[in-house]
Amino acid sequence: MINKFAHISTFMSMDIPYEDADVVVFGTGFDGTTSNRPGTRFASGAMRSESYGLETYSPVLKLDLEDYKICDIGDLELSIGDTDRVLNEIYEGSKKIVQDNKFPFMIGGEHLVTLPAFKAIYEKYNDVYVLHFDAHTDLREEYNNNKNSHATVIRRVWDILGDNRIFQFGIRSGTKHEFEFALEENHTYMEVSTINTFKDIVDNLDGKNVYLTIDLDILDPSIFPGTGTPEPGGVTYREFEQIFKILKNSNIKLVGCDIVELSPDYDNTNVSTVTACKILRELSLVAANNIEKNA
Amino acid sequence: MINKFAHISTFMSMDIPYEDADVVVFGTGFDGTTSNRPGTRFASGAMRSESYGLETYSPVLKLDLEDYKICDIGDLELSIGDTDRVLNEIYEGSKKIVQDNKFPFMIGGEHLVTLPAFKAIYEKYNDVYVLHFDAHTDLREEYNNNKNSHATVIRRVWDILGDNRIFQFGIRSGTKHEFEFALEENHTYMEVSTINTFKDIVDNLDGKNVYLTIDLDILDPSIFPGTGTPEPGGVTYREFEQIFKILKNSNIKLVGCDIVELSPDYDNTNVSTVTACKILRELSLVAANNIEKNA
Amino acid sequence: MINKFAHISTFMSMDIPYEDADVVVFGTGFDGTTSNRPGTRFASGAMRSESYGLETYSPVLKLDLEDYKICDIGDLELSIGDTDRVLNEIYEGSKKIVQDNKFPFMIGGEHLVTLPAFKAIYEKYNDVYVLHFDAHTDLREEYNNNKNSHATVIRRVWDILGDNRIFQFGIRSGTKHEFEFALEENHTYMEVSTINTFKDIVDNLDGKNVYLTIDLDILDPSIFPGTGTPEPGGVTYREFEQIFKILKNSNIKLVGCDIVELSPDYDNTNVSTVTACKILRELSLVAANNIEKNA
Amino acid sequence: MINKFAHISTFMSMDIPYEDADVVVFGTGFDGTTSNRPGTRFASGAMRSESYGLETYSPVLKLDLEDYKICDIGDLELSIGDTDRVLNEIYEGSKKIVQDNKFPFMIGGEHLVTLPAFKAIYEKYNDVYVLHFDAHTDLREEYNNNKNSHATVIRRVWDILGDNRIFQFGIRSGTKHEFEFALEENHTYMEVSTINTFKDIVDNLDGKNVYLTIDLDILDPSIFPGTGTPEPGGVTYREFEQIFKILKNSNIKLVGCDIVELSPDYDNTNVSTVTACKILRELSLVAANNIEKNA
Amino acid sequence: MINKFAHISTFMSMDIPYEDADVVVFGTGFDGTTSNRPGTRFASGAMRSESYGLETYSPVLKLDLEDYKICDIGDLELSIGDTDRVLNEIYEGSKKIVQDNKFPFMIGGEHLVTLPAFKAIYEKYNDVYVLHFDAHTDLREEYNNNKNSHATVIRRVWDILGDNRIFQFGIRSGTKHEFEFALEENHTYMEVSTINTFKDIVDNLDGKNVYLTIDLDILDPSIFPGTGTPEPGGVTYREFEQIFKILKNSNIKLVGCDIVELSPDYDNTNVSTVTACKILRELSLVAANNIEKNA
Amino acid sequence: MINKFAHISTFMSMDIPYEDADVVVFGTGFDGTTSNRPGTRFASGAMRSESYGLETYSPVLKLDLEDYKICDIGDLELSIGDTDRVLNEIYEGSKKIVQDNKFPFMIGGEHLVTLPAFKAIYEKYNDVYVLHFDAHTDLREEYNNNKNSHATVIRRVWDILGDNRIFQFGIRSGTKHEFEFALEENHTYMEVSTINTFKDIVDNLDGKNVYLTIDLDILDPSIFPGTGTPEPGGVTYREFEQIFKILKNSNIKLVGCDIVELSPDYDNTNVSTVTACKILRELSLVAANNIEKNA
Repeated sequence: MINKFAHISTFMSMDIPYEDADVVVFGTGFDGTTSNRPGTRFASGAMRSESYGLETYSPVLKLDLEDYKICDIGDLELSIGDTDRVLNEIYEGSKKIVQDNKFPFMIGGEHLVTLPAFKAIYEKYNDVYVLHFDAHTDLREEYNNNKNSHATVIRRVWDILGDNRIFQFGIRSGTKHEFEFALEENHTYMEVSTINTFKDIVDNLDGKNVYLTIDLDILDPSIFPGTGTPEPGGVTYREFEQIFKILKNSNIKLVGCDIVELSPDYDNTNVSTVTACKILRELSLVAANNIEKNA
Repeated sequence: MINKFAHISTFMSMDIPYEDADVVVFGTGFDGTTSNRPGTRFASGAMRSESYGLETYSPVLKLDLEDYKICDIGDLELSIGDTDRVLNEIYEGSKKIVQDNKFPFMIGGEHLVTLPAFKAIYEKYNDVYVLHFDAHTDLREEYNNNKNSHATVIRRVWDILGDNRIFQFGIRSGTKHEFEFALEENHTYMEVSTINTFKDIVDNLDGKNVYLTIDLDILDPSIFPGTGTPEPGGVTYREFEQIFKILKNSNIKLVGCDIVELSPDYDNTNVSTVTACKILRELSLVAANNIEKNA
Repeated sequence: MINKFAHISTFMSMDIPYEDADVVVFGTGFDGTTSNRPGTRFASGAMRSESYGLETYSPVLKLDLEDYKICDIGDLELSIGDTDRVLNEIYEGSKKIVQDNKFPFMIGGEHLVTLPAFKAIYEKYNDVYVLHFDAHTDLREEYNNNKNSHATVIRRVWDILGDNRIFQFGIRSGTKHEFEFALEENHTYMEVSTINTFKDIVDNLDGKNVYLTIDLDILDPSIFPGTGTPEPGGVTYREFEQIFKILKNSNIKLVGCDIVELSPDYDNTNVSTVTACKILRELSLVAANNIEKNA
Repeated sequence: MINKFAHISTFMSMDIPYEDADVVVFGTGFDGTTSNRPGTRFASGAMRSESYGLETYSPVLKLDLEDYKICDIGDLELSIGDTDRVLNEIYEGSKKIVQDNKFPFMIGGEHLVTLPAFKAIYEKYNDVYVLHFDAHTDLREEYNNNKNSHATVIRRVWDILGDNRIFQFGIRSGTKHEFEFALEENHTYMEVSTINTFKDIVDNLDGKNVYLTIDLDILDPSIFPGTGTPEPGGVTYREFEQIFKILKNSNIKLVGCDIVELSPDYDNTNVSTVTACKILRELSLVAANNIEKNA
Repeated sequence: MINKFAHISTFMSMDIPYEDADVVVFGTGFDGTTSNRPGTRFASGAMRSESYGLETYSPVLKLDLEDYKICDIGDLELSIGDTDRVLNEIYEGSKKIVQDNKFPFMIGGEHLVTLPAFKAIYEKYNDVYVLHFDAHTDLREEYNNNKNSHATVIRRVWDILGDNRIFQFGIRSGTKHEFEFALEENHTYMEVSTINTFKDIVDNLDGKNVYLTIDLDILDPSIFPGTGTPEPGGVTYREFEQIFKILKNSNIKLVGCDIVELSPDYDNTNVSTVTACKILRELSLVAANNIEKNA
Repeated sequence: MINKFAHISTFMSMDIPYEDADVVVFGTGFDGTTSNRPGTRFASGAMRSESYGLETYSPVLKLDLEDYKICDIGDLELSIGDTDRVLNEIYEGSKKIVQDNKFPFMIGGEHLVTLPAFKAIYEKYNDVYVLHFDAHTDLREEYNNNKNSHATVIRRVWDILGDNRIFQFGIRSGTKHEFEFALEENHTYMEVSTINTFKDIVDNLDGKNVYLTIDLDILDPSIFPGTGTPEPGGVTYREFEQIFKILKNSNIKLVGCDIVELSPDYDNTNVSTVTACKILRELSLVAANNIEKNA
C-alpha cells in the first residue's frame, strides 16, 4: 500500500544501482556566468519531477528505457559562487564516471558546465569529435572579462581540440567575428540555423569517438521558451527528432553527452521542461543502445 | 442602448433555439480520472468567453456560422466526484440529442467523456467508424486500477466496435504494448506522429457513418500547451487545418464529434483556448455543411 | 563528491526510517470531488521540492527538526478516478500508521481525504476532539449529489462524533443553513472569520485527545492564493503562527493531523507552497514535541 | 438533465427580470484614458464567471442574495475608441435606470466611468453626497492634455458638487497640489491611507442621499494586484469589510454606487477578481437592504 | 568604471544623433481603439529593454547594426484618451522625420497608428505602394461605430491610395465581406494565410516607392502569443525571415515602415518581445542598407 | 513634440548631473552566490521602468523628489562570473561616490553586494552603526564552501565592526546557531520577526553615523513575493512605512544605504517591483532630507 518509490527521486526508470549502470545521468545546477536570464540551476530537479508524465517507450526509436541499464545519481554538490571551484567539482565528478567505464550524461546548468565534463572525456579519448547543437556560436575569446563563460565554452573546447574536430548545428546568433571564425577561417564546421547536413557529417564520422553537447536553445522558442536567451528561428521538435534516428542508425561511438540551458521557471506551461525530458529519454536510449552495439 | 446579449452566453453565433438546431453543442466538464494536470472542467466556459475574439466566417472553408443552425445548450449538470454517475449523465444527455435527430458536438472534459457520448451514437449507428486524433494511444486495458479512464477510452470503444473500425492519427506516446496492439496486431489503424494518410482513409470511408474524436493534444505543445499531458512533436495548426478541408470535400456521413482535453488554466496566454475555439468553429461548419449535403 | 541526497526525496530532514519514527508524514494526492479549481493532487510533491528553501530550526518555537524522529514515507498509491476506492486506500494507509503507534501527519489533497484518516484515528481514540481550521463550513449534508465531498467532510465527521466535539475557526463562507447548524443549533463550536478564541478552547481541552485538520484556505488569499476556492478576509500568517505556540504550550494530547487544499499551480510565485511548508515544519515540530512531552 | 442556466450569464443569483428589480447591475468596459496598465474592460466579464465560486449568503451581513431583487443586465454597448461618445452612452444607460426608479450599480471599467453615471444620479438627487474609496486622489485639473480622465474624475465631480460634499478614504498617492486641494484648502474631506473615520462621517450623513464610488485599488496590492496602478500601503480586506457593516447599520439613503479599476489579467491567481466579486456581493446586499429599509 | 550607458535607453546600437541618422526609430504607444486585449502601449519600452539580449550582427543578412546610422528618438508624447488628437500627434511626428529626409521606422501601438504615419509618407511619395503583413484583413468600413480603428486601418489607406496599390499577406481572419472586397472585387491583392507570393510581388515593384506595415500577429501564436487577437495558422519565424532576404535583394525603394501590435504583458516568457526585437533588427538593417544602395 | 526623455532612463526625477547631486543611486546587478531563486540582477532595470507609475510626492513624509538633488548613474559594469572581481568593482564604485562626498544609495543585486559598499563607507566612517532589515540572519560563518555569500554578509560586516554595532530587525529564519550568536551571545542586537523596537534603537543612536541595509524579504511574501527566498510572517508595507517616518524625525546621520534582493521575474503582477520603487522613493527622500538637515 505504501508507495515503494516514495524515497526515490530519479528520472523515470533510471534507478539502476551505479555499479550496474552503463549510462550515468547527473545534474550540474550551475548558472554563475549566465549573462541574461538565470535559472538553469533548477533544470535537473524540474526534469526529474516532470519526467513521470512521459512513457518509458519511444515509438520513434522503438526502444524502451526499461530494457537498459541507466542510473541517475542526482546532482553534483557544487560550491555555487566560486566559478573555478565549481568547474573543478564537475571535472572530478565526470572523471570518476569516465574512469569507471560508464557513459556520462550530464544535465546542466548553463553551457559552461560542458567544459570540465568534456575535459574528463578528452583525457580518455583524445581523438574525440564534438557535435554541438546550439542557437549561439559560443566562440568568443572572452566575455564579461572572463575566459570561462557560457559564451566562450566552445572556443575553450577548440583550444583543446583544434581545427576540424567541432561540428556546429542550428547556429543563428553571434558576433560577426564569431561567424567568420567558423565560416571563413574554417576552425569549426558550422551549419547556420538548420541541421540538414547532420546525417552527412555523422556518416563521415563512422567509427569515431564522439561527444554530443546540446544547448536546448537550438529549438525554436515556440516550443522551448524556458531558456536564458531565446532566439527565434530555431528548429522544431520534429526536425530535431531526426537527430536521434540518425544517431541510432550510425556507426559512430558515443562517449558522452550533455543537455544544457533549460531554465524551467521562464516557462509556466512546463512545456520546455517536458521537451527537455523527452530529449533526455531519446538520447539516453540512443546512448545505451550505442553502448550495446559497440560492446 | 442596453446590450441585448447580456443574458446570453453561448459560443459565438450558436444561439439558435434547440428545437430548430441541426447541430447541438454541449459541454461536459469532467476530469475525474485525469492522472496528470487536471482542469479540463474549465474548457467549455473558457471557450465560450474567448470565442468572441474570432470571426464567424472561415476563409479556409468559405463558410459562415451565421448561415447554419447551431445551438449551444451549455454544460450538462454532472455529479462530479462519482465517475459512474457522471458517465451515465453524459450518456443520457447525448442520447436525447441523438434521438432528437440532431448532431451532438461535445466539448470535454477529459477524453473519458467520449465513451458515453459514443455509446449513444453507437446505439443509433452501429455501423459507425471512429476517426481518432490524439498524441496518446489511449489503448490501455486498465489504468490506475480503473477500466474507465482517459487512458483506456479508445480501448473501451474498441471493445464495442472491434477491429477495422478505429483510425488513429498523430499518435506519439504510449506503452510498447499499446503500439503493438495497433501496429502489429492491427486492431486499429494507426499513423504515428503525423496525419498524412488521413485523406486516403477518408476516401475509403465514402458513404459511411463516421464519429470524430479530437484530443487536442494531437497539436504540438508550441501552439497548444494548455492540456494535461503535453507531448512534443505534434502537428501544427496549419497541418491540422487540412483535416477540415478534407472532411468538407468528402462523402462520409458525420454523425457526431467531440473536442477534448483543453485545460485552459495551464496556458496564461489563452492561445490554447483560442485554438480550441477555432477548431470548434471549423468543425461545426463542416458538420452543419455535411448535414446539409446529406439532407 | 556525489551528492548523497540524490536518491532521496522527502521533506527536509524527515528521512528517519519508518520503524524509528514518532511522526509519519504521508501525501494523499486526491482531488476528485473538487468543484472549483483542482490541482491539490500536486501539493505534497511541490512541498517536498520547496521545503529545502526553509531552515530546520523554528525561531518561533525554538525547536529544530533535526532533534526529532520524523519520517516522510511519500505519497500513498491511490486509484484516482474511483472515489470510494481512494477513500478506502487512505483509510488503510492511515490505520497502519495508527496501529504502529505512530502519529499520522497527512498532506492532502482536497479536504475529503480527512474523512478516512480521521476514521482510522477514531477507531483508536473514540473520545477524540477535532480542531478544524478553514474558510468554509464544510457542513453540507450533500454536494453535487454526493454525500462524500470536500464540502461535506466536517458534516461526515460530525455524523461520527456528534455534538460538542468539533471546534471550527476562521470560517467565513457557507450557506445560511450551514451557519445556522453551527451558530444557532450549536452542533459545532464556530468562530467566524477569526481565530481569537483558540487559546480558550485549547485550555478547555486540557488532557484530551485532539485531531487537527487544517484547510489552508483559512489563510487570507493575499498570502495563500494557491488553493481551489480562495476566500478574502482570512487570517494572516503571523496571526496563524500563534496557533503553533498555543499548541506547544498546551496540555492536550495530539493524536493526528492533516494539512489540505494547497493547489500549487495556481500560485506561480510559489509563496503558497512555501507557506504550506512552513506550517508543515511548525506543526510537525509541535507534534513531535507533544509526543515527547506525553511519553 | 440539460443545464437550465446554459443560456444565462449573470452574476450569481442576479437574474431577476429588469422590471421587477430594485437593484440593477451593469458593466461598462471602458479603459480608454488609462495611463498605466489597461484591461479594466475585462472586469465585469471576469467577475461574472468567477462569482459562481462564492456563496449567496454573507455571514458578515447575515443577508442572502436570494432574498433580494437584483438584476444584472450585462454590459452596456460602448463605442470604444471615442471617449466622448462612450461617456454619453454610459450617461444614457445610467439615466434610464435612475428614471425607472431603480438603484444603479455599475461595474467599471476605469474610474472615468463614474462621471457620467454620477451625472445621471445628480440630475435626480442634486443634494447627493459622495463617498470615495481610492488609493489615488483623482483630483487633477487635467491629465495627458485631457480634462476627462481617470486621474481627474473626482475633480470633475467636485466641479458639479462643490465643497463639503465629497469624502475621500484610503488616499495615498497624488501630486503635492492635489493633497493641498483636499487637506489644506478643504475642498474635499480626505483621510490619508486609512478608513478609520468612515463611521463618524457616515453618522454625520444621517438621512442624506449618498453615492458610493469604490476604486478597488484602495485595497492593498497584496490582496488586489489586479489593477492598473497598484499602490502599496492599502487597507486589508478585513478592514474594508467594516465599511459594509457600517453602511448596513447606518441611516443614510444610498442612491447609487460603482466598483471600478479591476484589471483581471494582471492577476493570474484570480484572487483580485474573487475579491471584487465578494465586494459586489456585500455591497449589493447592503444596497438592496437599504432600499428595503427606506421603502 | 561607471557604466557610460546609464543615462541612455535606446534600442541596442541605435544611438546615433538624430541629425546624423538615416533611419529614425520611434515608438507610438497608443491602443485606444483596441477591441480585444489591450497593452500594445508597452511594446516599444519592453522592446528597448529586451533588445540587449540580441547581437548587432545578422547572420541571415550578413549585415551589422554597428555599420549603419540609426537613431532611436524614443516614444512620441501622446494625449492618450483622445483618439483624434493622438492621430494628429503621430502625423506631426512622422512628417517631421519625413521632411528631414530620414526614413521613419515606427513601433506601435495598435495598427491604427499606421494611418497618420502613412499619411505623412503619402504627402511626399504619392506614388507609394503598401506591403501589408497581418492575420486580419483590417478592411472594415467602420468598427465599434468608429471609422478610425485598428480594424479599419487598411481600408482607410485604400481610401487614400485606391486599387492596385495595396498587397496583403498572411491574412486569415475577417468578415466574409472583407474577403470579397479583396479576393473578388480585387481592391487589394491578398494572399490568404501564407506569404509564398511575396517575392513575385516585390519583383513586380522594381524601382517603386514602398511602405511596409507589419502587424506582428501575422506570425503564428506559437511564436507570438503576445498580441491582442492571436489567430492560429500563421507563418513561422523562419518563413517570415525570407521576407528580409527578399527585400534586401530587391530593387524597390523603401520609404518607411512600421511594426505594430506587440502586447508584451500577454506573454510572460518574453519570447514575443524578443521576436519583435529581432524583426526590428532585421528590418532596420534592410532599410539602412536600402538607403545606402539608393543613395 | 518629440519626447525629450527618450534618451534618458533613470528612476523618476533622479536626473540631476552627478556633479550637483547629494544622493547618488546606482545598481549592482550581481546574484552569483544566490542559492535559491536567482534574478536579482534584473532589479534595478525593472525598478527604473516601473518607477514612472509612482508620483514624486510622498504624502507620508510630506516631501517631494523634485525638491532634492538625486542622481541615478545607472548600473555599475560588473564582471559577472567572477565573484571576487565583482566585489572589487562594487567597492571601487562605492568608494568614488563616498570620496566625492555624496551619499551612496545602492540597488542590488543579492545581499552580498552590501559588503563592498559597506567597506567603502567604513573607510570613511569607522564609527558607523548598521541597521539591518531582513527575514534572514545572514550570520553564517560560511555557506556553500564560500566565506563571501548572501548568507554570510552580515557576519562579514560583524568581522569588521565587532559587537554592539549591528541592529537586526524582522529576522525570522536562520540556523539555531545563528540565532544564538545574536540572542544569547549578543554579538548583534536582534528583534525577531517584527520591527517594534526600531524607534528606541534609533533614539539611542542620536548623532551617530548610520548605514542602512534593507533586504526586501523582510516584507511579508503577500506583498513581496518577488524575491529569492520568500519567508512567511514578515512585516506589512504599512508597518514598514513607519521606519521612514522614524528616520525622518530622528537625529542620526545617515551615511549610506542599500536595498537588495528584489527578483522581479518571480512576481508577474509587478507588485514587488512597485513596492521596491516606493521604498526607494521614501528612503531617498529621507536620505536627501537628512543631508539637508545635517548640512
